[in-house]
Amino acid sequence: MHSQKPVVPQPDSGLLRVRMNLAYDGGPFSGWAIQPGLLTVQGALEEALATLLRRPIRLTVAGRTDAGVHARGQVVHFDLEPGEWESLARGKMIDPSASLLRRLRGVVTKVLGGRVGAPVPYRDLAGAIEVHTAELAPIGFDARFSALWRRYSYRIADRAESWDPLTRNITLWHKHALDVDALNSAAERILGVNDYLSFCKPRQFSTTIRELQDFSFTRNNDGVVVATVRADAFCHNMVRALIGASLTVGAGEERPEWLHERLVAKVRDSKTILAPPHPLILEEVKYPDDAALSGRAEQTRALRTSED
Amino acid sequence: MHSQKPVVPQPDSGLLRVRMNLAYDGGPFSGWAIQPGLLTVQGALEEALATLLRRPIRLTVAGRTDAGVHARGQVVHFDLEPGEWESLARGKMIDPSASLLRRLRGVVTKVLGGRVGAPVPYRDLAGAIEVHTAELAPIGFDARFSALWRRYSYRIADRAESWDPLTRNITLWHKHALDVDALNSAAERILGVNDYLSFCKPRQFSTTIRELQDFSFTRNNDGVVVATVRADAFCHNMVRALIGASLTVGAGEERPEWLHERLVAKVRDSKTILAPPHPLILEEVKYPDDAALSGRAEQTRALRTSED
Repeated sequence: MHSQKPVVPQPDSGLLRVRMNLAYDGGPFSGWAIQPGLLTVQGALEEALATLLRRPIRLTVAGRTDAGVHARGQVVHFDLEPGEWESLARGKMIDPSASLLRRLRGVVTKVLGGRVGAPVPYRDLAGAIEVHTAELAPIGFDARFSALWRRYSYRIADRAESWDPLTRNITLWHKHALDVDALNSAAERILGVNDYLSFCKPRQFSTTIRELQDFSFTRNNDGVVVATVRADAFCHNMVRALIGASLTVGAGEERPEWLHERLVAKVRDSKTILAPPHPLILEEVKYPDDAALSGRAEQTRALRTSED
Repeated sequence: MHSQKPVVPQPDSGLLRVRMNLAYDGGPFSGWAIQPGLLTVQGALEEALATLLRRPIRLTVAGRTDAGVHARGQVVHFDLEPGEWESLARGKMIDPSASLLRRLRGVVTKVLGGRVGAPVPYRDLAGAIEVHTAELAPIGFDARFSALWRRYSYRIADRAESWDPLTRNITLWHKHALDVDALNSAAERILGVNDYLSFCKPRQFSTTIRELQDFSFTRNNDGVVVATVRADAFCHNMVRALIGASLTVGAGEERPEWLHERLVAKVRDSKTILAPPHPLILEEVKYPDDAALSGRAEQTRALRTSED
């Protein structure tokens, strides 16, 4: 989660903005954000796009996921010259959008498979990133700053009989039985617009004030407890810190009031526990109607500088 | 799926039969059945039990899954001397059953992690086998021969927007849109007691007559098509051959009647296509009430010799 200042194309910039929806298995990656020498989702995608477009492409992302964190509903954007967009169709009578999607899938597979010194076998990387749509975005769209909210899920199997090897890559195998009512009682007390410093790894010049819109726990039919966490935006490590604190309450080690006490204390100390990353999934990013996109981006940019 | 003749303890044999329910990720394994030099589920479990009990243990399994095939509801049994069972509690006032389960989990983890020359990193094997229960079985129980039926599921994502990297280990990413009505129309025509030779890799001295009790397709809310296949027992490769043939019908390349035509033709030829193993999951094995266990086992043993 590094600082980035995306260029927002104005209606008269002449650039075309492309929006892509994608999903990835965060397991094999050192997170979203590009880092020299490490396999990252951004690095793999930008390498694939550079291969396709024969020049460097910089992606702007809705949710910069940490190492091991997954996404089902990630959104990115990048900008192209109109000629570049048209050239994607290769002069044929086909849609540049469909062509980009099809060719990008092929190149991403090659980038992941052909990586020298890949830390995991190719077998594990095939299909680890799936681009679902690649289309021209409406005027004013910004994957990061136009977003109204981000929604994450977190899966916890708190009974040994629910430990399913087939979903162990996205589920916490927890040894303490959880009280879902206590979890919800704790969670609902910290909803709203608050300073979440106690649950954030703060960044210089950045606010830790966020609007937590949904924080709730449900036990599925298969016995797995799933947390839903939705906010206008998240500061660094926020979901994992919220879940980490909740597990203490869910196991009965702290009262439900404790989460709110931590919130108002505004401290980071040894009681700040990060839950593991692998059960965390970015499920959805919500944007306003087209007409409200620019306004939303201006408003958000004024509030935040280097976080989401 | 090799031949095995399990010893059935009679009420007066003095042996105690232990039933275990377990689940595994078939991905890293060369199938259930033990094979020299290969990592198999049976091999790992028998190694763990031998470590625990200080003598060789031979497991009898309900469904001998092929390489790459998974299980959520696998059932096995093995026999112990009463003294061995009691010794599991290590003289403490605890239940041998709970002690076996707890210790076996630890040893299985060590066996999987400590394997020299393991073909996949330890990270991938941790949690790949999960034993859910380990209890004394009722008189007459036989994991293989007492079973009334086996139920498998098979997951197919036939739309690119449903290709989810997080479940790619258990889902077929299929490039042709499937007609679920056509699939069901084809499937229901081959239900009942039939000779499934066209869908079986036959074994010497074995019948290929089975009772196919359920064969149906449903499109889930997430767009994934899930097949359910239930039979009293399956011959070798049967589910994958049934799915392979169905995909041809589902894509409109053959009429729904074709599946039945293949059935009555009783041939194995170039049109016998095996669907990939990784989307196949043994979900459940059903046994009769305790009183009917011995009778069921005798009945089954008379019908089949080396298959299930």
